[in-house]
Amino acid sequence: MQKFKVTFLPDNKTVSVDKDSTILSAAISAGVYINSTCGGDGICGKCKVVVEGRVTSQPNGIITPEERKNNIYLACLTNVHADLKVRVPDSSRLNFDKLTPEELEERLSGLYSKTEEISPVKAKFENGVFKHSPFTTKLYLELPKPTINDSISDLERLYRALRNFGGFPVIQTGLFNIRQLGELLRDYEWKVTVTLGRRNDMVEIVLIEPADTTGKNFGLCFDIGTTTISGQLVNLNSKKVLGTKAAYNQQSAFGSDVITRIIHAAKSDGLEQLHNAVCDTMNQIIKELVLEHKVDLNTVNCIVCSGNTTMIHLLLNMDPSHIRKEPYVPTANFLPVVRAAEAGININPRGLLSCVPGVSSYVGGDTTAGVLSSGLYQKEKPCILIDIGTNGEIVLGNQEFLVACSASAGPAFEGSGLTCGMRASSGAIQKIHIDKKDFSLRYSVIQDKKPRGICGSGYIDLLSEMLEAGIIDKGGKIKAQNHRRIRKTDLGYEFVVCFKEETASGSDIVINEADIENLKRSKGAIYSAASILVKHLGLEFTAIEKFYIAGGFGTYLDIEKAIRIGLLPDLERSKFVFIGNSSLAGAREILLSTQAMEMADNLAAKITYFELSVEPGYMEEYSQALFFPHTDLTKFPTVKF
Amino acid sequence: MQKFKVTFLPDNKTVSVDKDSTILSAAISAGVYINSTCGGDGICGKCKVVVEGRVTSQPNGIITPEERKNNIYLACLTNVHADLKVRVPDSSRLNFDKLTPEELEERLSGLYSKTEEISPVKAKFENGVFKHSPFTTKLYLELPKPTINDSISDLERLYRALRNFGGFPVIQTGLFNIRQLGELLRDYEWKVTVTLGRRNDMVEIVLIEPADTTGKNFGLCFDIGTTTISGQLVNLNSKKVLGTKAAYNQQSAFGSDVITRIIHAAKSDGLEQLHNAVCDTMNQIIKELVLEHKVDLNTVNCIVCSGNTTMIHLLLNMDPSHIRKEPYVPTANFLPVVRAAEAGININPRGLLSCVPGVSSYVGGDTTAGVLSSGLYQKEKPCILIDIGTNGEIVLGNQEFLVACSASAGPAFEGSGLTCGMRASSGAIQKIHIDKKDFSLRYSVIQDKKPRGICGSGYIDLLSEMLEAGIIDKGGKIKAQNHRRIRKTDLGYEFVVCFKEETASGSDIVINEADIENLKRSKGAIYSAASILVKHLGLEFTAIEKFYIAGGFGTYLDIEKAIRIGLLPDLERSKFVFIGNSSLAGAREILLSTQAMEMADNLAAKITYFELSVEPGYMEEYSQALFFPHTDLTKFPTVKF
Repeated sequence: MQKFKVTFLPDNKTVSVDKDSTILSAAISAGVYINSTCGGDGICGKCKVVVEGRVTSQPNGIITPEERKNNIYLACLTNVHADLKVRVPDSSRLNFDKLTPEELEERLSGLYSKTEEISPVKAKFENGVFKHSPFTTKLYLELPKPTINDSISDLERLYRALRNFGGFPVIQTGLFNIRQLGELLRDYEWKVTVTLGRRNDMVEIVLIEPADTTGKNFGLCFDIGTTTISGQLVNLNSKKVLGTKAAYNQQSAFGSDVITRIIHAAKSDGLEQLHNAVCDTMNQIIKELVLEHKVDLNTVNCIVCSGNTTMIHLLLNMDPSHIRKEPYVPTANFLPVVRAAEAGININPRGLLSCVPGVSSYVGGDTTAGVLSSGLYQKEKPCILIDIGTNGEIVLGNQEFLVACSASAGPAFEGSGLTCGMRASSGAIQKIHIDKKDFSLRYSVIQDKKPRGICGSGYIDLLSEMLEAGIIDKGGKIKAQNHRRIRKTDLGYEFVVCFKEETASGSDIVINEADIENLKRSKGAIYSAASILVKHLGLEFTAIEKFYIAGGFGTYLDIEKAIRIGLLPDLERSKFVFIGNSSLAGAREILLSTQAMEMADNLAAKITYFELSVEPGYMEEYSQALFFPHTDLTKFPTVKF
Repeated sequence: MQKFKVTFLPDNKTVSVDKDSTILSAAISAGVYINSTCGGDGICGKCKVVVEGRVTSQPNGIITPEERKNNIYLACLTNVHADLKVRVPDSSRLNFDKLTPEELEERLSGLYSKTEEISPVKAKFENGVFKHSPFTTKLYLELPKPTINDSISDLERLYRALRNFGGFPVIQTGLFNIRQLGELLRDYEWKVTVTLGRRNDMVEIVLIEPADTTGKNFGLCFDIGTTTISGQLVNLNSKKVLGTKAAYNQQSAFGSDVITRIIHAAKSDGLEQLHNAVCDTMNQIIKELVLEHKVDLNTVNCIVCSGNTTMIHLLLNMDPSHIRKEPYVPTANFLPVVRAAEAGININPRGLLSCVPGVSSYVGGDTTAGVLSSGLYQKEKPCILIDIGTNGEIVLGNQEFLVACSASAGPAFEGSGLTCGMRASSGAIQKIHIDKKDFSLRYSVIQDKKPRGICGSGYIDLLSEMLEAGIIDKGGKIKAQNHRRIRKTDLGYEFVVCFKEETASGSDIVINEADIENLKRSKGAIYSAASILVKHLGLEFTAIEKFYIAGGFGTYLDIEKAIRIGLLPDLERSKFVFIGNSSLAGAREILLSTQAMEMADNLAAKITYFELSVEPGYMEEYSQALFFPHTDLTKFPTVKF
């Protein structure tokens, strides 16, 4: 096969690829991350690149004749036919910079108070104190030396000492540890530290080390999101969170939502690529955490992973294809504890990995973890947990019952699929105020940079402000007015949020009617799902005691404006609690307490999956929610028009 | 490092070795098996070879000046200094021929009746019927296809179906099986066969295969002896033994008893060499069994191994060095079930391997298996099990108690360490009759070949006959008489059993006073150990209801003559039961019944180890037994003199 060199600029990374490879696949090989929301299907138009050299390209309706003239191509539909130079513009680039420490702190400080960091399993709710009994525990043993009268074998001697601690009914040990045992005990005067790990219903001797190493016992918890992966390094003895890191899920190069990822997994090597991408992202986070906090990777003995069902399948290199085929059955919701190494995760080579159990194909372990950390399951009166992500998961329940559904919200509130949408990271407009008289605009940008786009919380503000200012109507149509911010285009009207003079890219930042339609469908899907769920159980929203709002909005979410656009129901504001990343918090509780681990199993088994799409009245409810805030205004009594 | 070529004759095998390598190690590399009873210490004198080429050799008292003149050297003490030709005479060769089918049948027919082969777990004793519940079981499942209303995950669907069978409280599955599950179930219409294996307190899903393969479920049981390894291939459904094979333990090249092996294991690469040797021997047996019986190796799902504590350590590649150091503590007596592949044994790659639990460093799983298969533990009245091997293990007990000791009998009854001793294989004299008047001699040879030497049962006959004919006295001294079979040598008197005209080697087959001394110590060790054990428990031999005699005597052991020389006590002959390889029989029961597996655990925990050497009066008892039959003739009332 003929080979060509492709050089990506400004990265200046060169790879050699086969003739006819796509530029997108060449970029993946080169470690250059190009945006590809649709997963390479030529639909999203996010992967535009400027090419110097001979290529062939499939026809598509996205590249304009003007762009073609300037050698702009879609990386996914363009095949290499010669040595090339490919310039990747900023707008086509996946932002893979790690978050700065300040940004991280900003994003996380609202979620984890300092007190919580020191004692993450303290009561958030009345009875919710789990006993401190981490996933892996270290015990220092000084064994009596064998004598003629006490000549039981080395392994039995170890077991006898462990039994003195009590609470380990069934202990198993692998050959690896047994093979080293004789020499280890004798070389170190019968003084060893045993690391015990919970392996489902068993306790395993994970490690046997010389001398007293009980002071060094670390673990990790992860939230594996479709877009963002967050990890924390935890001292399992003190329960202290040493550090938190987040990074974009490198799988994003293969599509922005779980469906495109599942489709990619079915391609040759696709599953392997996705598996490697999530492992690489996690291993990079782990490496940075242990370096920053001077922790030896060999003292990290366990990891708890929370994520949606597809993410967990991909982490464990399990085929996710049946998740998207009727009747939507995953390979497994409850997974055995495995060695982290089996999943490709680099901690102590014998360290253990547990995945928070999921409920169904579209209600995963992240929801279980959210129910656990929010304390929903302990409430007397019914409460709701809404996790706003690409799939919006909603759980309704209390001590008695737990019902969950998944709304196909789409990635709009994560800034994906919109003309100027972006994730809640550097350069994103996150707050907006519009003057009702002259439409003059104030906004705040994450990290106070020049704006690059608008993130989820920015769009919530923007819609609410446009409604109040009369720029859009209840249906989301932009009212024709003679104002420099309102322009007519081939695709209908658009509203200019920032003129190009103010922006990082030098292009206007706008919202058009298609974007509004997109956001309206997202908020409609979430609201109507919550509404149908409440109705299904014979309740009213007013009967709900607390609304826990979780999701990737950074630190900022304006509840008032979210109600104003009809994303959240119009209820007493004190009922709403923004809890940030509830999936990561739940994973951490499981890491620190085997009681929480057992509780997660119970919760996953207890949560009933409610399939929205087959519910009579769902489509009607959804249609009614496709207005700002709703067709039935009596449902939003405090909202003024 | 300078290299030289060494060619072994008549094998015509050539290896290239470093300068200064010993000829013995060169032979091991070449796959030429030279006898080395002492493990290469230059003591046993079994490894004589004829060398052509330049060597250096350490001085020793074994090679005579005459032999040196003929270029005869000890392979273990001779170092390569040039390209060599080395002729290995028959007398220095380990006989590694596999036993012929006839020989095997002869050796085994007495031990396993045809009925037993079909139903090996039938009652040998009143209540000893274990339920048929093999180590691995196959279940064919036709799962209901998932629907929207029954959309539990694939793994939970499988577990639900298994729970319908009942009796599997705790099931675990590895990622390997889970990763394949989704595709397997759908490709094969939800019809699969699940292989379940017992893993200590858990049940593991070992394999999931398409369609109904329940008809093919095979297992292996092994007795791993220091000298001989015996294996059986068993149909786990029908309980039928398909075939039995025995082979010499290839570890013999590194020493003939466990002590020399343990010493070898401490050398660089020594443990690895011994581990590989036992694996090679077992894998060869397995290969022959599956080829002969047309069984696919992938349908062999489990293996149960019985052996002394050292053999089990070496099988699992565990350092055995502490077994021979005071206070004689093994690494483990109870070992976890592992994958056979982890131990280097080739069956189904996910197949399981269990070792019969041992009691102590010198009372191993072979004794536990013997207690299990003999049914000793179910007897009301006290019984004794005597396993005559290099270590003679003796167990005394009944339903109430079980006490075991180990007598350092030495390898004399296995034909090792004697001038003309050999194992009970082709060419061995196994029965002898001496005419009392003219000392004319009749003997029978295994496979009716020309005699090559004398095996254990032959020596028992020989000693008894020599006593009766007045050739030796009670002390084992050969009485000076004018007879062509009685000759004086530098080492004292010797008795010629076969003149060179009759033998395979062309040398006389003799027994000398050193041999008799050796045999006397062996029989004395076993008798006195049994005697001390009985006394220790406040009993007399007459109180013993049954004597189970186990060991590698082939099919033939003359109880009458064994009493005559004082190997066995002088009791009613009907009390003695020769049970052959009780270790292999026990392993097979465990293979076929998890109840037997649990019973073995109970027995190993219940058997008390009794350390002979610290018992007051042991040396006195031993000294008294160093006569034929004993100093105290009142103990042998039926023996005529």
